[in-house]
Amino acid sequence: MITFINCFTVPPGREEEFFSLWQDVNAYMAAKAGFVDHRLHRSLDPAATYRFVNVARWESPEAWQEAHDEGFRALVQQPQWQDFPSLPGLYEPVHEGSRRDAAAEV
Amino acid sequence: MITFINCFTVPPGREEEFFSLWQDVNAYMAAKAGFVDHRLHRSLDPAATYRFVNVARWESPEAWQEAHDEGFRALVQQPQWQDFPSLPGLYEPVHEGSRRDAAAEV
Repeated sequence: MITFINCFTVPPGREEEFFSLWQDVNAYMAAKAGFVDHRLHRSLDPAATYRFVNVARWESPEAWQEAHDEGFRALVQQPQWQDFPSLPGLYEPVHEGSRRDAAAEV
Repeated sequence: MITFINCFTVPPGREEEFFSLWQDVNAYMAAKAGFVDHRLHRSLDPAATYRFVNVARWESPEAWQEAHDEGFRALVQQPQWQDFPSLPGLYEPVHEGSRRDAAAEV
């Protein structure tokens, strides 16, 4: 399992426009083999560097790579996307826990 | 519930040093009231802009704010942290799902 993290820059006041475009891409990718789940986050601060951050899990880097096909490119090459730059990357979890774990260590 | 996302810049070859410092801060915060859980991610690409990304959930923005006390500041004001700039922000989930959801829509 790997985690795809994508940080989006969205000009103020254009959140709904971004969200609509993003949902089209997400629906396309969520149906692909190897997609596990996703959570899109919006910043509480409207002036945050990254207004939206998507965290999606895939079964493998290969599945993630294969999902970036012609249909995906057709979606993200729409000119509207040019106003919403993104910083995508593949990650692996290296440390996780909950408050319960911390309390149990006391 | 809110989500704290923190993106870290880490110079090549200094991952272990960062990870050790980060674990000290995380252990401190994970014991605080309102901390829910966390997952630290490391990029598969050593040259990624953000080598590590932490995604932590808290019960509320207030709990998160209150946890940033004198003990927290003492930890992050250590000079070693100056080589590891971070971009922190508070977020709320606005869209989530899994492949199963997508398949169910077909």
